[in-house]
Amino acid sequence: MTQKKRTEIAELGEFGLIDHLTKDFTVTNKNTLRGVGDDAAVIKAGREDAVVVTTDSLLEGVDFDLTYFPLKHLGYKAVVVGVSDILAMNALPEQVMISIGVSSKLPVEALDDLYEGIKFACDELGVDMVGGDTTASMTGLVINITTIGRAKRKAITYRSGAQFNDLICITGNLGAAYMGLHLLEREKRVLKDVQNPEPQFSGYEYLLQRYLKPRARKDIIEALAEEKIVPTSMIDISDGLASEVLQICKASKCGARIYLDRIPIAKQTSALAEEMHTDPVVAALNGGNDYELMFTVPLAMQEKVMSMGLVDIIGHITRESTGAYLVTPDGGDIKLRAQGFKEE
Amino acid sequence: MTQKKRTEIAELGEFGLIDHLTKDFTVTNKNTLRGVGDDAAVIKAGREDAVVVTTDSLLEGVDFDLTYFPLKHLGYKAVVVGVSDILAMNALPEQVMISIGVSSKLPVEALDDLYEGIKFACDELGVDMVGGDTTASMTGLVINITTIGRAKRKAITYRSGAQFNDLICITGNLGAAYMGLHLLEREKRVLKDVQNPEPQFSGYEYLLQRYLKPRARKDIIEALAEEKIVPTSMIDISDGLASEVLQICKASKCGARIYLDRIPIAKQTSALAEEMHTDPVVAALNGGNDYELMFTVPLAMQEKVMSMGLVDIIGHITRESTGAYLVTPDGGDIKLRAQGFKEE
Repeated sequence: MTQKKRTEIAELGEFGLIDHLTKDFTVTNKNTLRGVGDDAAVIKAGREDAVVVTTDSLLEGVDFDLTYFPLKHLGYKAVVVGVSDILAMNALPEQVMISIGVSSKLPVEALDDLYEGIKFACDELGVDMVGGDTTASMTGLVINITTIGRAKRKAITYRSGAQFNDLICITGNLGAAYMGLHLLEREKRVLKDVQNPEPQFSGYEYLLQRYLKPRARKDIIEALAEEKIVPTSMIDISDGLASEVLQICKASKCGARIYLDRIPIAKQTSALAEEMHTDPVVAALNGGNDYELMFTVPLAMQEKVMSMGLVDIIGHITRESTGAYLVTPDGGDIKLRAQGFKEE
Repeated sequence: MTQKKRTEIAELGEFGLIDHLTKDFTVTNKNTLRGVGDDAAVIKAGREDAVVVTTDSLLEGVDFDLTYFPLKHLGYKAVVVGVSDILAMNALPEQVMISIGVSSKLPVEALDDLYEGIKFACDELGVDMVGGDTTASMTGLVINITTIGRAKRKAITYRSGAQFNDLICITGNLGAAYMGLHLLEREKRVLKDVQNPEPQFSGYEYLLQRYLKPRARKDIIEALAEEKIVPTSMIDISDGLASEVLQICKASKCGARIYLDRIPIAKQTSALAEEMHTDPVVAALNGGNDYELMFTVPLAMQEKVMSMGLVDIIGHITRESTGAYLVTPDGGDIKLRAQGFKEE
């Protein structure tokens, strides 16, 4: 008997796995403007418009822990996760579809909480809930979100458009959500056997909010439109800065230099990192869950983009041959690496 | 301490649950032509066209059993499940996005099989695979399929358009997939402790094929277009005939009479049902997994629709006040009931 070859998923990593699985697929439909490889697929919709579609899964035990993740927040976050991908195409979200796999052990009231959060996010972001389904799950809660948006075709921003010397801009600050998650995990561990646990979150409320109730940066897309800025490339920061910079470099066939001391990090992020003896920059680079936006603009737009008052310039695009690096304050270069296949 | 009310999901049933969870959502976006409540959502795309979008989840242990479901077939079926919903809108499928949640215990070669099946279905149905993601799963395999299609707006067929006296047509035959599933389950049970099991499927190959590799009835949508027939209502038969008839009745505010002896049932379905001492009509009514289409047309179209040579007329639409009934050969009336929340 011949032994069948067995390759572990970890050998390829998450992105290597996606590349491997999708390499034989080709696009043949004239209405498919962009397939695999960006934050969302792009589909022709009339003469000037395009519809953008993205799908995301959230799995209990991997993407969330119901011990400390309130269902209302989870519903809200599910919508934000999908909407963030749409915004990263420089498009505005319009519809969302939610599929849930749910154990019959969960009462209807728990699902009411989940859907209350979904509705809150839909109302806030101007999105219609247009479908989905419910299935029985033998195990944990499974949530899938399909999000649909729209943009003028000429405004759509891909990962692949970054040019030599472009400025790399990011919104908000990074690493806060990841530190919030660590805080929640610590308190869960510490209070495991306590009867009426009273977790200690004082002083770190912002971090919890960033993890449990991230906001989608629709304001950025609206501000860019108002300033008539169309970025050359864009991506949302869901897997950590390092991974996103590498995605832009891969798609745009370029390199990048990110300056460590320009990465915006909130005070609470630094404070908790110090308390936990970790580096807040590592949280920013690899933590993920930020749902901020990273985009590139031509050097000539520096003043215009800074006048928005909403972004930080953290580096610039280089030639592909020079690679993607983090530059430390003492001038050292650290090669950027993406995280592997997420597994808790 | 006040006791929070606890309602079991089973009290509402699957469709009751969806109605309950989505009742507070309203549609506010001008591009949303149809939201919750049909096989797919309908979104404006230019002056005359619409994009239709649907999402479906397949969960290991609930929707499939990897003991006997080959991954290649599972990939194929996942695409068919999504495409079937698009066809049920009288639209043609164009794109598909696949998200999988996968245990790291599964080798890459297993996922290669899954994606080979996905690619086979995409090629056969003329559909582009345009995205998705992979996540680690702590438990079983989770597959989510988002399917996108397109149609002229005036051709889109909803569940809500059935009129008094319309004919109820179905394609293919019903109950075969369900009997195929039963056969697989029986052999699994019987051969549980056998070292080199050799399951007995002889004579029932068609039933296995119907369960493991159902086909999407794209031919029907093309034939309807060729004959210039736009059905008044349509739905795909994924949950069993009884459930689908009730969905049409609910959406169209009508009743229905289905004639038991007109329900097409394949020979192998009847043969295995007899062997297993069950009723093949029950398999047709409640079994599901057929992925055939049910649609209604005005009485005047009887000849035209029969000339297609692809459908059976199994009953007609009545007033809402008269309800939905199955008429037995001896003239008896049996009230149609839908199945509850699926749980194995």
